[in-house]
Amino acid sequence: MNAVIRAVVRTANGRYGDAIVGFQDGWRGLLEDRKIHIHNDDRTDRLLTKGGTMLGTARTNPDVLLEGLGRIKRTLDDNGIDALIPIGGEGTLTAAHWLSDEGVPVVGVPKTIDNDIDCTDTTFGHDTAVSIATDAIDRLHTTAESHQRVMLVEVMGRHAGWIAMNSGIASGAHLTLVPEVPFDVDEVCTMIKRRFQRGDSHFICVVAEGAKPAEGSFHLREGGVDEYGHERFTGVAHQLGVEIERRIGKEVRTTVLGHVQRGGKPTAYDRVLATRFGLHAAEAVHDGRFGQMVALHGTEIGLVSLAEATKQLKLVPNDRHGEAAAFFG
Amino acid sequence: MNAVIRAVVRTANGRYGDAIVGFQDGWRGLLEDRKIHIHNDDRTDRLLTKGGTMLGTARTNPDVLLEGLGRIKRTLDDNGIDALIPIGGEGTLTAAHWLSDEGVPVVGVPKTIDNDIDCTDTTFGHDTAVSIATDAIDRLHTTAESHQRVMLVEVMGRHAGWIAMNSGIASGAHLTLVPEVPFDVDEVCTMIKRRFQRGDSHFICVVAEGAKPAEGSFHLREGGVDEYGHERFTGVAHQLGVEIERRIGKEVRTTVLGHVQRGGKPTAYDRVLATRFGLHAAEAVHDGRFGQMVALHGTEIGLVSLAEATKQLKLVPNDRHGEAAAFFG
Amino acid sequence: MNAVIRAVVRTANGRYGDAIVGFQDGWRGLLEDRKIHIHNDDRTDRLLTKGGTMLGTARTNPDVLLEGLGRIKRTLDDNGIDALIPIGGEGTLTAAHWLSDEGVPVVGVPKTIDNDIDCTDTTFGHDTAVSIATDAIDRLHTTAESHQRVMLVEVMGRHAGWIAMNSGIASGAHLTLVPEVPFDVDEVCTMIKRRFQRGDSHFICVVAEGAKPAEGSFHLREGGVDEYGHERFTGVAHQLGVEIERRIGKEVRTTVLGHVQRGGKPTAYDRVLATRFGLHAAEAVHDGRFGQMVALHGTEIGLVSLAEATKQLKLVPNDRHGEAAAFFG
Amino acid sequence: MNAVIRAVVRTANGRYGDAIVGFQDGWRGLLEDRKIHIHNDDRTDRLLTKGGTMLGTARTNPDVLLEGLGRIKRTLDDNGIDALIPIGGEGTLTAAHWLSDEGVPVVGVPKTIDNDIDCTDTTFGHDTAVSIATDAIDRLHTTAESHQRVMLVEVMGRHAGWIAMNSGIASGAHLTLVPEVPFDVDEVCTMIKRRFQRGDSHFICVVAEGAKPAEGSFHLREGGVDEYGHERFTGVAHQLGVEIERRIGKEVRTTVLGHVQRGGKPTAYDRVLATRFGLHAAEAVHDGRFGQMVALHGTEIGLVSLAEATKQLKLVPNDRHGEAAAFFG
Repeated sequence: MNAVIRAVVRTANGRYGDAIVGFQDGWRGLLEDRKIHIHNDDRTDRLLTKGGTMLGTARTNPDVLLEGLGRIKRTLDDNGIDALIPIGGEGTLTAAHWLSDEGVPVVGVPKTIDNDIDCTDTTFGHDTAVSIATDAIDRLHTTAESHQRVMLVEVMGRHAGWIAMNSGIASGAHLTLVPEVPFDVDEVCTMIKRRFQRGDSHFICVVAEGAKPAEGSFHLREGGVDEYGHERFTGVAHQLGVEIERRIGKEVRTTVLGHVQRGGKPTAYDRVLATRFGLHAAEAVHDGRFGQMVALHGTEIGLVSLAEATKQLKLVPNDRHGEAAAFFG
Repeated sequence: MNAVIRAVVRTANGRYGDAIVGFQDGWRGLLEDRKIHIHNDDRTDRLLTKGGTMLGTARTNPDVLLEGLGRIKRTLDDNGIDALIPIGGEGTLTAAHWLSDEGVPVVGVPKTIDNDIDCTDTTFGHDTAVSIATDAIDRLHTTAESHQRVMLVEVMGRHAGWIAMNSGIASGAHLTLVPEVPFDVDEVCTMIKRRFQRGDSHFICVVAEGAKPAEGSFHLREGGVDEYGHERFTGVAHQLGVEIERRIGKEVRTTVLGHVQRGGKPTAYDRVLATRFGLHAAEAVHDGRFGQMVALHGTEIGLVSLAEATKQLKLVPNDRHGEAAAFFG
Repeated sequence: MNAVIRAVVRTANGRYGDAIVGFQDGWRGLLEDRKIHIHNDDRTDRLLTKGGTMLGTARTNPDVLLEGLGRIKRTLDDNGIDALIPIGGEGTLTAAHWLSDEGVPVVGVPKTIDNDIDCTDTTFGHDTAVSIATDAIDRLHTTAESHQRVMLVEVMGRHAGWIAMNSGIASGAHLTLVPEVPFDVDEVCTMIKRRFQRGDSHFICVVAEGAKPAEGSFHLREGGVDEYGHERFTGVAHQLGVEIERRIGKEVRTTVLGHVQRGGKPTAYDRVLATRFGLHAAEAVHDGRFGQMVALHGTEIGLVSLAEATKQLKLVPNDRHGEAAAFFG
Repeated sequence: MNAVIRAVVRTANGRYGDAIVGFQDGWRGLLEDRKIHIHNDDRTDRLLTKGGTMLGTARTNPDVLLEGLGRIKRTLDDNGIDALIPIGGEGTLTAAHWLSDEGVPVVGVPKTIDNDIDCTDTTFGHDTAVSIATDAIDRLHTTAESHQRVMLVEVMGRHAGWIAMNSGIASGAHLTLVPEVPFDVDEVCTMIKRRFQRGDSHFICVVAEGAKPAEGSFHLREGGVDEYGHERFTGVAHQLGVEIERRIGKEVRTTVLGHVQRGGKPTAYDRVLATRFGLHAAEAVHDGRFGQMVALHGTEIGLVSLAEATKQLKLVPNDRHGEAAAFFG
């Protein structure tokens, strides 16, 4: 996220001489007029390699935002702010779209590890999350091989299975369960048994936190997921692990990657993408092109309307799941 | 582990011309005479950078080993084996000691990520595990900072807190709970509240899987730990997280690193240590010095008696915990 | 490269039951009929995380290939080979195109760290090289900051500046010199002096090995580049460093990354890309679509004609260089 | 280095309430009374994971220091400074020893990637440098294997071969040349030819920058080394590479790792060591134990006299080189 901020500052401040103000803790800072001035200097430069955000972040209840429209407009007026560049995932961009409809000049930047924002090839943060998950699964292979184990690893992705699918392909997992395609426990067990009957040494299955059993397959207790959808105690992977043990009598080990998938030094890919997104967002503001979101199309950064981009989540399409499935088993 | 095997082979085969046989899946392979011949060639060389073990591994019930003594001796006789080099942690080395007492020529190599083997400065595998845990906690810092969170991270260490302590120091955690020092939930909560009152942004606590609450502090449910001591559902960190939430009303996020701490490419430190251990184990065999374990003392590799080394686990001593505690809060 | 081979085998052998033969050391193996059979098993699976190639590689003189057409066709006939999947950069794909024109059924896969193959968004190997270079430059920042240094770092890229540009953006370098845009030493010196006058702590410049001074700027000695274009002693970065020292009287440190940019464990991005390329190449063969190269367009893998793809190198276009230049100084 | 500063501050300021002043750019800051106050807060905490030093660094001519004694004492008096904690390698610690003899209360901390300080098992910075070099050599293996190459890689170490030896062992190099043992080019060539005759795929040789040919072996031109001993154009590895090519007619690729061995995120091992060094240095100051250097002995941190520690450099002893040599060829 810092890489975007740096790029915006470099461009808007360094190139066009505009002043940049950052609001702390996301929308909340905007509502409460808590801000910091950011300059085009060495300190901002050093942000590039740092994960997280210098501005802090916080989820804000949409209703609070709705009621706060007056205050937001006042904050913008009071500070002489010409345009807003919200950086975030589905929630942030939907709010950005709504603000835009209410007359606030907005250019959005899609940032989420989940890669579930529509109308852009990818979002920044995703490559880093896939890279971390892949490293972890690489290590599980070593252990699983030595111990002839079944291993389940739960990765982030409540609605979309992009992290699971990409880290599953990259790490050579033997199965990947994504929210888009309900799984059948029997089929999973059959696949595991087949591998061990063939004499293969281990079985690794990547499970998106939002993966769901097919109707009649097995009962997933809901208690494990809190109001934000975060796995608290036993999410789908833990429950599936118990079920597999019960059915095939083979010990299963489950790892939930959790928050280690976020944060840390972003990959070079994400830093380039974030830098380009920031540059183009600042250019869009300069050109007065509002209500838009920067987006990657092939090798080019373009603009798409926030309305279009927030209409629906970008899920793993059938043909991409089919590609991945070619490597199952 | 492969680095040890390579070093043994390079030395015993390459230097002294001895043939090397590896038994698959640990003691089980020895009991069942399942073996592979390992040569001093390029293939063995390439093992150096690989984690895990080319030979596989398995826990064997001590009683099975006891009853199998005759079979083990026969396996050694049948194959004309002059000496055994068992590589492993407390269980393996205790068995090695017992075999040695029964007249089997043995030189042990201490390998465990837990670093809980006595009479050696460290064991190989530990540095790699600390390195992986530290990387993960580094990433949690970024997320926790941005979100003003309390984060608990559970690392391996059932009896000894070395991984927790070293990764806690290396990553600048604000508290580290180890099995050697029972913790008081009230004190933990006080420490967390103090940090946030001071205006600090987050609190990260590293919890060894074997950390235990002090008498009367809070009730740790046992159900979460299986017969091998592996956390299955909710270990100490998850339960402590719930307790802290209940007491201070602040959201807590818990991550259990689990098996990703094992496996993967070993650190340079561990590869050098493993190579030196292997070399010296092969030399000890060549010199007929049996019933010994290779050990690191300062910069030198020496031999200590298996009897001495397996008398007790090496726990984190009070003064080392005191050193670490200087950085708590 | 191994990831492509695995994907081809998984698909062609695993899905369609075709037998796969790998020719060793590139075209040479094809000329000399040196081959190995590759099966869809665990051994092939483990290739995924390994850099380099299981088959070996070698540059072959185009003339030798030309004269060898008969022999190549015979090798294909003798082994009952229906189609060839050459994997490589410009040289390999140009040869593939020529073979295709001569009637050999060919589907090419673009693989080069240089990213200079046309008609595809990127080539696999590039992300890994950028990632390694970025890590190295990150480290140079730390040292340069502490010592207030000018540092030049030479990265690969004889004809195209993609590695230099992308690693320069990702690492926040203060200047990037690419082959596509001749540089003026005076301007470079002015930029350096300006940064230090502003009180900034250091200056880092990424130099593509093929970067060239503008006419009249300074004389680049040619002796440093061998017949394959590899920097042997003092390439452009070393010579530029001396020139800067001479002109501004400030110590300059030069690092040539060299071969460490190749090899090693590929990034998750490259592994996903390589796997998808391999899958689609095998599908193209199955569908009898020859004379084609697999290519990435946005999020999709498609086919482009080898004729089109090998017409010219894909250089850094002006607008992309302009984007990067926004971050210079 | 930042990890030491943080630990000193945490202990001396946090525990004992002492104020901490950092002098910028090493001795120069002390001579010119350029300082910053460092507090025990979150900002200092975040230093832990950063390489380099927040204080800057600079080499200062010993004579300047000698003449500046009066000024240094005045700086200390003026600022009410009770003790000095110099952090550095041989030059810094020798100066520290001399200041101590002149009556300045000093506790030294050994920090150098070269590991050439006597009376301590290791110095911090070394493990990180070995780790980086090992990663680089790992990658060279992949390339060298695929291309059947001879590769030389020059690592730091002008006087002592610790980095070369440890990274050579860790990465499974086929030969390591250190300053302590002059090498014979004929023997090197023989070793290379033997490997290729055996059918092995490649040869990797790690060369310390201070490695020297044995008398009569070949003429090493001195021009390549500047007044600080830094390789400028063609150091020993490049010259040896040309010589090997000339003698055995096989292409040789040379990589000089250079400054990428410094800087970057320190390893967990180095962070723990630096933290413990800092803590014990602050404790020594508190206890009034001056003229000492903190040192690692086994698992304990102790104090040794600066006089003793700076008497001579710690070179690679014969038996350690012998251990490494067991893996040559």
